[in-house]
Amino acid sequence: MASEVAVIAGAGAGLSASLARLLTTEGFRVVLAARNTAKLAALVEETGALAVETDVADPASVANLFEAADKQGPLALAVFNASGRTRGPIAEVDADAVKQALLVGAYGGFLVGQQAARRLLARGSGSILFTGASASIKGFPGSAGFAMPKFGLRGLAQSMARELGPKNIHVAHFIIDGQIEPVGKKPERPDSQLSPDAIAQTYLAVHRQHRSAWSFEVELRPWVETF
Amino acid sequence: MASEVAVIAGAGAGLSASLARLLTTEGFRVVLAARNTAKLAALVEETGALAVETDVADPASVANLFEAADKQGPLALAVFNASGRTRGPIAEVDADAVKQALLVGAYGGFLVGQQAARRLLARGSGSILFTGASASIKGFPGSAGFAMPKFGLRGLAQSMARELGPKNIHVAHFIIDGQIEPVGKKPERPDSQLSPDAIAQTYLAVHRQHRSAWSFEVELRPWVETF
Amino acid sequence: MASEVAVIAGAGAGLSASLARLLTTEGFRVVLAARNTAKLAALVEETGALAVETDVADPASVANLFEAADKQGPLALAVFNASGRTRGPIAEVDADAVKQALLVGAYGGFLVGQQAARRLLARGSGSILFTGASASIKGFPGSAGFAMPKFGLRGLAQSMARELGPKNIHVAHFIIDGQIEPVGKKPERPDSQLSPDAIAQTYLAVHRQHRSAWSFEVELRPWVETF
Amino acid sequence: MASEVAVIAGAGAGLSASLARLLTTEGFRVVLAARNTAKLAALVEETGALAVETDVADPASVANLFEAADKQGPLALAVFNASGRTRGPIAEVDADAVKQALLVGAYGGFLVGQQAARRLLARGSGSILFTGASASIKGFPGSAGFAMPKFGLRGLAQSMARELGPKNIHVAHFIIDGQIEPVGKKPERPDSQLSPDAIAQTYLAVHRQHRSAWSFEVELRPWVETF
Repeated sequence: MASEVAVIAGAGAGLSASLARLLTTEGFRVVLAARNTAKLAALVEETGALAVETDVADPASVANLFEAADKQGPLALAVFNASGRTRGPIAEVDADAVKQALLVGAYGGFLVGQQAARRLLARGSGSILFTGASASIKGFPGSAGFAMPKFGLRGLAQSMARELGPKNIHVAHFIIDGQIEPVGKKPERPDSQLSPDAIAQTYLAVHRQHRSAWSFEVELRPWVETF
Repeated sequence: MASEVAVIAGAGAGLSASLARLLTTEGFRVVLAARNTAKLAALVEETGALAVETDVADPASVANLFEAADKQGPLALAVFNASGRTRGPIAEVDADAVKQALLVGAYGGFLVGQQAARRLLARGSGSILFTGASASIKGFPGSAGFAMPKFGLRGLAQSMARELGPKNIHVAHFIIDGQIEPVGKKPERPDSQLSPDAIAQTYLAVHRQHRSAWSFEVELRPWVETF
Repeated sequence: MASEVAVIAGAGAGLSASLARLLTTEGFRVVLAARNTAKLAALVEETGALAVETDVADPASVANLFEAADKQGPLALAVFNASGRTRGPIAEVDADAVKQALLVGAYGGFLVGQQAARRLLARGSGSILFTGASASIKGFPGSAGFAMPKFGLRGLAQSMARELGPKNIHVAHFIIDGQIEPVGKKPERPDSQLSPDAIAQTYLAVHRQHRSAWSFEVELRPWVETF
Repeated sequence: MASEVAVIAGAGAGLSASLARLLTTEGFRVVLAARNTAKLAALVEETGALAVETDVADPASVANLFEAADKQGPLALAVFNASGRTRGPIAEVDADAVKQALLVGAYGGFLVGQQAARRLLARGSGSILFTGASASIKGFPGSAGFAMPKFGLRGLAQSMARELGPKNIHVAHFIIDGQIEPVGKKPERPDSQLSPDAIAQTYLAVHRQHRSAWSFEVELRPWVETF
């Protein structure tokens, strides 16, 4: 019997790597989507995951990603971690960079969500998890180019949750409210940055929630974080 | 070595019973607080929990509850499930019943939270979990006598989370957005009401979260619930 | 023809005085409710308002207030400005002071809202305006004794708005997000504290909104305020 | 002395026309931006406004709009009413239409906001008003193609408000929570749809608020609307 497949879009060294390791351990067949898969070589070797070069803002590229995943087995879980962002004063920030951030961070979430939804609707179950940030619910000065895609992604996730929940597909949105601990670099104050392994545990717990008691929005922040 | 103690205030047949069972299984010494402990006889027999007759809106009674708990071992977890409520059109609803709902549902949460905080601050760790409802974030027509205490409880929980988090005490607020399945009565549509056992699993998972990635607010609702 | 009556509960030197002046100018007959009406002597002389000694947390006292108002003319507008608050670390704050804050700040809002609703329902129109604060939507450390009543008042206001709107009664909740300028003391940075006259203008504008486009929640903060 | 200029982007027959009339009456020189200015002929004749053919999602076109406005006088107010939207089940909705909705509804808001911010920063005052919808804060089933741009626009507005407020530029976001009354067609139940004239009155009142008490977010809904 084929393992269930988990697609992780926007794969990098932090949360996506922790998710890839945890999900592999738990028996999933993991498919990693990244703009540059060369960077994922060590992770691929470690986990046996399939890496697919993907531009999440390009419909054809996202379709190709999911077709590659289809060959690995039935989809059970899709995680959207990709994030577009640019910073700067509103009067000066580069308009093209803002557009790109919006297309990667929000439209990319839509494209991945749509492909995942089609497959999970056909199977009748599964989860789609979106990774948000503090900027998903608060627009900070100088962050139009991050708040706009992150708010947009949250709107997408809400809409999908309300539509797909009653079809037995669990959509959840995580607000990562703090800095994720960089690989190999512990913060000075213990646990003052989010451990990607700890985040991954909560993602898996949400994927496994009994459907009588599903979470839609889950905030995660370090114990010392102000909010 | 003494087991760690979990105090569950507002214990009835649903969520509190599921929590008592799960926490007992997981090695906690459980203390149940209820207005009428006679109703808890079967649960006490099943779990070996200690039941303490308590009026959560009375400071002396709540102090007494925690002193009884102290004799069982060190406190690790307090859950506030008590809920005051009364319904009716704003022009007609009984003012005394509204006052009582506010004192039980919000002030009671404060009294339990304060006693728990004192003990957990002394130990340097632990969790305080508050049970909210749809009415915690939405005031429905005719529900002044429920929205007022539930909003108030959420304000309390937020304030405590921001104060106690950096002292290594995890405060979380759960929004139970739907009907909890009554004991022994399955809903017609499968899993269309929250299973109290499923809720209890998420409470325990939140208590056990790594402190680098704590949740404050967690919504739980059945897959078919509109929101 | 009798002037329309505006009841202002929780009257002090700041916002309530500005409202009393503005509403008097606009032709309302103003009734001021305060714990200590002696302090209102100058304002009463200036505006011709009626001052009624009132404990907003006492049902009989609030009933008496509205009966006194009835003798002045038909009620058109009620504003609840009273605010209970106490501060302190959760483990140390005085439980009685917290209870009192809750009863004044939330239950008092209910009692005033209920009396106002009865009269406005009988007339078929009018407004009930509740004054909130930053603490209505954010529980700060050490502010359980302020966030709890303010969150509670917001829940009450929402519930009343949803119930009474379709009966042609406009309920609104204002979030005063910043310090109100103390009487006779300009802040160093111009307009960096809320002018009570400016707040009053927005209250009146909301009372006068066309019913096809009513506001429920309105935030007000100084231009330089962080939020 | 040149009149102050108000730019209204996304001009159609409803809210934008009401704003154009009201602002003209109040002495503003109005500049209307629309994809198809032919439709604005009657309004232009009535108000003397300048109409500029504009694609709000195109940086050059938006720059051209504001250059045309510059020739009319100093900018005081910009209103962004344009709205991209498409509807449909997540699995079926057209990806290109979703992209277009996002670019018009969110990126367009950014482009207009950026051009306005540059001018108002140079002058040291003015307002930028964004028009949201129910979908700005709630993602409904089948509305990914509307919630995504509307949430995104709200994130932009928040970010700009926090950045520009302390520079004396008032940014506000309106949540139009209901149907706007179509031109020339009264709803069956009186005032059960938002009158565009009534909305325009609140926009103007917000533009004129004293800067010690600015609103950022204002909801507007008909008295009978459920929410």
